[in-house]
Amino acid sequence: MDMEYLRKLLQDVKNGSISVEGALGDLKKLPFEDLGFAKVDHHRNIRNGYPEVIYSEGKTVEQVQEIVKKLIERNNNIMATRADYKIYEGIKEIINDTVYYEKARIAVVKKREVLKSKKIVAVVSAGTSDIPVAEEAAITCDVMGNTVERVYDVGVAGIHRLFAKSETIMKANVLIVVAGMEGALASVVSGLVDKPVIAVPTSVGYGASFGGLSALLTMLNSCATGIGVVNIDNGFGAGCLASMINRE
Amino acid sequence: MDMEYLRKLLQDVKNGSISVEGALGDLKKLPFEDLGFAKVDHHRNIRNGYPEVIYSEGKTVEQVQEIVKKLIERNNNIMATRADYKIYEGIKEIINDTVYYEKARIAVVKKREVLKSKKIVAVVSAGTSDIPVAEEAAITCDVMGNTVERVYDVGVAGIHRLFAKSETIMKANVLIVVAGMEGALASVVSGLVDKPVIAVPTSVGYGASFGGLSALLTMLNSCATGIGVVNIDNGFGAGCLASMINRE
Amino acid sequence: MDMEYLRKLLQDVKNGSISVEGALGDLKKLPFEDLGFAKVDHHRNIRNGYPEVIYSEGKTVEQVQEIVKKLIERNNNIMATRADYKIYEGIKEIINDTVYYEKARIAVVKKREVLKSKKIVAVVSAGTSDIPVAEEAAITCDVMGNTVERVYDVGVAGIHRLFAKSETIMKANVLIVVAGMEGALASVVSGLVDKPVIAVPTSVGYGASFGGLSALLTMLNSCATGIGVVNIDNGFGAGCLASMINRE
Amino acid sequence: MDMEYLRKLLQDVKNGSISVEGALGDLKKLPFEDLGFAKVDHHRNIRNGYPEVIYSEGKTVEQVQEIVKKLIERNNNIMATRADYKIYEGIKEIINDTVYYEKARIAVVKKREVLKSKKIVAVVSAGTSDIPVAEEAAITCDVMGNTVERVYDVGVAGIHRLFAKSETIMKANVLIVVAGMEGALASVVSGLVDKPVIAVPTSVGYGASFGGLSALLTMLNSCATGIGVVNIDNGFGAGCLASMINRE
Amino acid sequence: MDMEYLRKLLQDVKNGSISVEGALGDLKKLPFEDLGFAKVDHHRNIRNGYPEVIYSEGKTVEQVQEIVKKLIERNNNIMATRADYKIYEGIKEIINDTVYYEKARIAVVKKREVLKSKKIVAVVSAGTSDIPVAEEAAITCDVMGNTVERVYDVGVAGIHRLFAKSETIMKANVLIVVAGMEGALASVVSGLVDKPVIAVPTSVGYGASFGGLSALLTMLNSCATGIGVVNIDNGFGAGCLASMINRE
Amino acid sequence: MDMEYLRKLLQDVKNGSISVEGALGDLKKLPFEDLGFAKVDHHRNIRNGYPEVIYSEGKTVEQVQEIVKKLIERNNNIMATRADYKIYEGIKEIINDTVYYEKARIAVVKKREVLKSKKIVAVVSAGTSDIPVAEEAAITCDVMGNTVERVYDVGVAGIHRLFAKSETIMKANVLIVVAGMEGALASVVSGLVDKPVIAVPTSVGYGASFGGLSALLTMLNSCATGIGVVNIDNGFGAGCLASMINRE
Amino acid sequence: MDMEYLRKLLQDVKNGSISVEGALGDLKKLPFEDLGFAKVDHHRNIRNGYPEVIYSEGKTVEQVQEIVKKLIERNNNIMATRADYKIYEGIKEIINDTVYYEKARIAVVKKREVLKSKKIVAVVSAGTSDIPVAEEAAITCDVMGNTVERVYDVGVAGIHRLFAKSETIMKANVLIVVAGMEGALASVVSGLVDKPVIAVPTSVGYGASFGGLSALLTMLNSCATGIGVVNIDNGFGAGCLASMINRE
Amino acid sequence: MDMEYLRKLLQDVKNGSISVEGALGDLKKLPFEDLGFAKVDHHRNIRNGYPEVIYSEGKTVEQVQEIVKKLIERNNNIMATRADYKIYEGIKEIINDTVYYEKARIAVVKKREVLKSKKIVAVVSAGTSDIPVAEEAAITCDVMGNTVERVYDVGVAGIHRLFAKSETIMKANVLIVVAGMEGALASVVSGLVDKPVIAVPTSVGYGASFGGLSALLTMLNSCATGIGVVNIDNGFGAGCLASMINRE
Repeated sequence: MDMEYLRKLLQDVKNGSISVEGALGDLKKLPFEDLGFAKVDHHRNIRNGYPEVIYSEGKTVEQVQEIVKKLIERNNNIMATRADYKIYEGIKEIINDTVYYEKARIAVVKKREVLKSKKIVAVVSAGTSDIPVAEEAAITCDVMGNTVERVYDVGVAGIHRLFAKSETIMKANVLIVVAGMEGALASVVSGLVDKPVIAVPTSVGYGASFGGLSALLTMLNSCATGIGVVNIDNGFGAGCLASMINRE
Repeated sequence: MDMEYLRKLLQDVKNGSISVEGALGDLKKLPFEDLGFAKVDHHRNIRNGYPEVIYSEGKTVEQVQEIVKKLIERNNNIMATRADYKIYEGIKEIINDTVYYEKARIAVVKKREVLKSKKIVAVVSAGTSDIPVAEEAAITCDVMGNTVERVYDVGVAGIHRLFAKSETIMKANVLIVVAGMEGALASVVSGLVDKPVIAVPTSVGYGASFGGLSALLTMLNSCATGIGVVNIDNGFGAGCLASMINRE
Repeated sequence: MDMEYLRKLLQDVKNGSISVEGALGDLKKLPFEDLGFAKVDHHRNIRNGYPEVIYSEGKTVEQVQEIVKKLIERNNNIMATRADYKIYEGIKEIINDTVYYEKARIAVVKKREVLKSKKIVAVVSAGTSDIPVAEEAAITCDVMGNTVERVYDVGVAGIHRLFAKSETIMKANVLIVVAGMEGALASVVSGLVDKPVIAVPTSVGYGASFGGLSALLTMLNSCATGIGVVNIDNGFGAGCLASMINRE
Repeated sequence: MDMEYLRKLLQDVKNGSISVEGALGDLKKLPFEDLGFAKVDHHRNIRNGYPEVIYSEGKTVEQVQEIVKKLIERNNNIMATRADYKIYEGIKEIINDTVYYEKARIAVVKKREVLKSKKIVAVVSAGTSDIPVAEEAAITCDVMGNTVERVYDVGVAGIHRLFAKSETIMKANVLIVVAGMEGALASVVSGLVDKPVIAVPTSVGYGASFGGLSALLTMLNSCATGIGVVNIDNGFGAGCLASMINRE
Repeated sequence: MDMEYLRKLLQDVKNGSISVEGALGDLKKLPFEDLGFAKVDHHRNIRNGYPEVIYSEGKTVEQVQEIVKKLIERNNNIMATRADYKIYEGIKEIINDTVYYEKARIAVVKKREVLKSKKIVAVVSAGTSDIPVAEEAAITCDVMGNTVERVYDVGVAGIHRLFAKSETIMKANVLIVVAGMEGALASVVSGLVDKPVIAVPTSVGYGASFGGLSALLTMLNSCATGIGVVNIDNGFGAGCLASMINRE
Repeated sequence: MDMEYLRKLLQDVKNGSISVEGALGDLKKLPFEDLGFAKVDHHRNIRNGYPEVIYSEGKTVEQVQEIVKKLIERNNNIMATRADYKIYEGIKEIINDTVYYEKARIAVVKKREVLKSKKIVAVVSAGTSDIPVAEEAAITCDVMGNTVERVYDVGVAGIHRLFAKSETIMKANVLIVVAGMEGALASVVSGLVDKPVIAVPTSVGYGASFGGLSALLTMLNSCATGIGVVNIDNGFGAGCLASMINRE
Repeated sequence: MDMEYLRKLLQDVKNGSISVEGALGDLKKLPFEDLGFAKVDHHRNIRNGYPEVIYSEGKTVEQVQEIVKKLIERNNNIMATRADYKIYEGIKEIINDTVYYEKARIAVVKKREVLKSKKIVAVVSAGTSDIPVAEEAAITCDVMGNTVERVYDVGVAGIHRLFAKSETIMKANVLIVVAGMEGALASVVSGLVDKPVIAVPTSVGYGASFGGLSALLTMLNSCATGIGVVNIDNGFGAGCLASMINRE
Repeated sequence: MDMEYLRKLLQDVKNGSISVEGALGDLKKLPFEDLGFAKVDHHRNIRNGYPEVIYSEGKTVEQVQEIVKKLIERNNNIMATRADYKIYEGIKEIINDTVYYEKARIAVVKKREVLKSKKIVAVVSAGTSDIPVAEEAAITCDVMGNTVERVYDVGVAGIHRLFAKSETIMKANVLIVVAGMEGALASVVSGLVDKPVIAVPTSVGYGASFGGLSALLTMLNSCATGIGVVNIDNGFGAGCLASMINRE
């Protein structure tokens, strides 16, 4: 409930400028979104410096531009995910200082500074082909104010490469593990650390990887504890969850 | 690497009581588990007051008893999950002050006090049949030192019941959402809060729920951000992940 | 919002027995379920003479009895679905004039008369093994105040049997078609009539019926228009939907 | 049976201009479709002002044109679904006053006025990408003579947006809920209203949405009562079913 | 249409004992099942000496007995499939000379002799565990009047055993191939002969046989031509199809 | 075994121009394909006038041409399935009197006349989009010497259209039923006739048709007896099986 | 071809006691299994000291006894897999010195000594519940004459336990890796060694392990090279394959 | 552990140029990959003359070139799999004597000679469309130093063609069987030989082959013993495994 509106209404009741029945009618018509409960949604981005997010896949450059124009009025940071170069150029036309992260397929418009947390999110990934998803997670974390460390190309079939990075892994506060094909990396990493692991299966692979199903099932069935799984290729979702965990 | 062992070895090298080649041979034979890297695993339970865990399903009372006897020497707390009454009685025979949480199917042996965090884990569940999994999560959180608040029976088909509990939901630091059938509760809850949500699909349902697949897919596909999913019916895993996030 | 409560509050504001700020605080604490919006749920059963429903599967006789004791206070009709004979006896212990529909596995406690609609719901089913699900749908419709006509044993492999019942089928206002195995009956029936058809796949079958998946897919893919599908074996859900459509 | 034909035949028998055996022969040759039973199909469109429908997907412009030419003789309204702009132009070549609904991918030829029902069909949809399917449903309802209200962009992850539209939702006679990804919207909407809900899963999503399977399963498993599900992306089917329910 | 009824009606029209309009009304009410078209179903069993069939699975002894009592009036042969020993005993109580084929789980009541075709149906099966399904097919063929030759235990992993039976295989007119697990036998057999092969996948196997899915897919994907596949474990269906092909 | 070769060998043994051991060695080296058992394969095409078949999908025009050149030496008829226009032109370059069946995507080279059977194969299909598969079956039957009758566009949702063709259906000796989406047509047709039905699921459809899986499962689960199912879209396979059944 | 038989035949031809045509007839009737080609099968067990194998699952004690009686005549070793204690007792009744391996569910009758290879097969397994399958593999290897080393309880979530056994793993010639749930162990092990790895997924797990599907897909998708996968729970098959690789 | 480094360190301890505590610190920082345990990986290629492998799919020519430039420094052989002609040309630009195997889609850079094993790997394949996968396996084996024999076009539906090649099959030490569609060839081949069989399902097929799933399941369910399965289309993996088995 919009406090000011309500206070005004009650004062009107008090001073008789509206009848009790009239006020009742007004209260009944109050749209739900004006209840304090839901307000959180509107303000939390601003409080936390979080960006507004546009999922660009399947949208035309024009559609994205239209959304950007609306969002920009709120003066928040904006992040367009799954954005190809044309989407980036389209946004840049509107706001010149847009930054494009090509590997992550993310375009970012920075309108205000986000406080950087010193707690580290480590983004660990298995193969070269998993990097776009890993980068989507990493850039998301970065834009949301986290310190990010990347540990790439450390698949379980050459596990010494992972162990060579143990120091980085051990000092992270949250870990995002990105892996396609057999997806076993999440279990191994989670077995090494004492911190929450967010597992991102990727659609990388062929044949019986069934578009990421194999990695997804592996991650869900991990016997390591402390793993939460997000959708296949959902680097952005992993970045958000990591940010929430990493906050303050 | 066991520091004392290594220090002794190096001192032996220094004072000549072992040759360089002999020391080299000894170093080469050092089993991996003695490296400092992996030590974490052995000591983290103790540091954090975490329990040792026995997954009882598919084990006989005798097998569980045998494991309990071994674990008890380390003087840690012990938690047997998926434990029916007979498993509980079996453990009780060995250690009298075992506590049984029937709904959660968990038996707990408490050897040392765990520091209670004041940060709240809210366990939210949809239907009555989801309660065993929700309780598994709740008791796991409790044994691992979290303050737990339960918000049960708040399925999305009667969403006002969920909103009636908004205060509890809003003050939680981490939320575990347990739901079978359509599993939509995780999305709705995650849309209301600004905190990490751990979603636990349950195998509750029939027909096209396909043993929890329906709820699992729903949760993985949530358009709300900040959701990590664990395996179907894995209340324990959700509890562990919540504890890790909630710690310190 | 409970009108009486609100009216009283506003009058208190008006006559100064509560301050504007005090009223604001009270309004803020109003639980969501007291908002008029959600009230529908509490009263619609009574308005429509609809029963309270208990899904008995997986519940003990004691649990069902406990629920019945609570529900009976509201003086509504009660319907326990998926109820075996023991569940029925358990309810009967509490309320003597409970009626048991064995084939439908439904026990009904009738506390008030439901107005009977003259519009017909036809329940059409394919094989003998589909009858429990068909009866669940039929009794649900009956208890909810519909006139029900049963057209059983009219599978598509002997389609003349279906056509022999064309008169009954043609005069129905809503049709529930229950079929397992190939589930083709829904398409054929829907092609004959000009009315909404609710299709219920059943888990009847073996091998490549995959627990009802075959019938479910068939029904979803029907090239006939005007078919809505419910979950496998969900006779109750079909009955509810038919009742909603058939009402007034 | 064509009554006029039959009456003539019987009169011929009566006045002896055909023998009994000759009439028997004629009757035997009567094609099935001339039996009164099946006539419904031929005349119901006209009675109800329903359009003839062409499913354009996979058809060439030429094929659609050919069908349109045939249908136009019956002087009915014509509706081409899944029609891209070229299909529309192809139809327009034949009948100039064809209207194209781009978002809905529907082209409509209106030859006669359809009586508008005052009962409302509300079309509720979750995300922007679900709009083509929602529009297919909405335009179908519109063409079939329903009053349509659109409630778009009200996904469950920001549930206050849905509640802000509660008034529209509450006054609908039938609701079509269109949602991809987790598909949870149908349950939430159905829990708020007392009216039939037609749920349309969409193929919107990626990864574990498996082309709409996730949303489909969610909708089938809804614990809300009063939901009938149609095929993935089948906005047209939902519109037809809603029209049937909404009629008279 | 019952010719006698129609002739009478037309004569009544002719001689004026019924008006044209009265006759029209009568014609309109003619139930579909009285059309000559559907009559086939009622008489074909008798014409061909085919048995009436009861699918016993999921039926109580009492239910089967009740059906037998009804069927016996038509004086046809009766065959109860998926019949355990108790079902057999139940039938025997009613008709003493019932024969039980234990391996095939079929009970047969023979009321009339069936003409034996000299054309051979060969029933070929892979493993010992496939024999119940193979026998169901074989006995079905036998009861329906075919000469049956059994070629059992000739799995593709020891293909010389199959070739040792080549003479029998080569002289068959139709072949039924029954195989679980990898189901490859159908392809091999079909590659050897020039006759129709009916492939029956069985649910024999474990792990990735997924209840017969593996064998089913193998058979559907056979690169040999001339194979028709029936449902998993559907020996009866294979027997029927073979009989139809083998007839006259 | 090539009789002439063997006879010669034995005569050589007899007249001493080869030793017993030498003959033994020769016999051992006899390739399997020279055994009489396998000869069937080489000669059956010629005996029956059957065509040699090339599956063109995934082959280049050059590859098909190369195969055609080889096959043509045997002077058999040749049939290229899944052949687009370019494939046809490629074959025509080599043999001028090649005929192209566009709808069936089949090119035929006729080198010798095939005896036409008078027994009818009816090819029944549901929707317009199923016609390519139906035509593949029909042309295959035709080329293999069967009399083919087409009954197209008779889906179960407008079942009177099927019944209008009952005469054609009733006189067929074998029926091929081609249907996508719900695939229910096979059951209905099989329930009307007393003849073998070959069911061909097609990949026509969208959403929950899952590329033909829906129709496939429907057909496998048919409660009508006498149905054999082939792979999705396998019109050629259905035609072969029908020809085998229909022969002599 | 039985050489003696053939030699005799040729000599008969040579000395005229059989005509060329008579010999031709005899040759034609030679059953396939008498050809040298297939003889391998009959003799290879004996040559290699391999056991005859009975798959006991789904067989009665009597059936197993009957098979044992037959096999024993060949004087080979016998191995009954998936044998419970009753099966063992049944075999023991016939041959007293039968040995039972309870964990492996294997009963062995040793009639002749098998030469022991010194090359090591290492059987590596993840969890306690995987041990029955691991033991089935280990005992199979043992009975087939391999030196077996067991490395149990070394799941990837506590990878230091695996590394502690690196010496054993490094010296194996073939490795069998048995793992359920996420099945990641095969990749890790294969990444460490330079030898063939046979991966055995187990059905151990719950929820999204889908009866072993998760582990199976993981293993098939491994990015480590040198892994061959067998069916879920197929310890016996893995043992056989390892033996073949390890031989000589 | 790098022995030289360690020896130096210990000598420094011995001669006092580093303190015990300083050496301890150095030891602790030793990266895992310097442990002797993992060294295997770095050296085994060189020892065995194995190539470095680049999986080209999804990589740009530039990316592959970059990798080639790095790898070439180690002076090993290089093999790029899934390489189209452009990838080949890109590599050739850098190293002129690159060889391209078109059917296998493999480009090879040979820097050193690999010792050729005389033990034969037979690559057996079913259909023409399986040849690219078969060639990938064959060339992989060849590059890794095996003698390869190809047995192509020997599908089970014309099994005499397979038997005609029995001599080649019987003399192989390892067999790779490549088959799509029904995938039955692996079972048949494995039943003929006494050697390890590596089964490679291919994605060749349509309809119910579900992208190779059918062949995969068939191979996993084979009742022949001695079969290890690799991922769908993974000819390279099969070649690697065969090489490992075939070595020395």
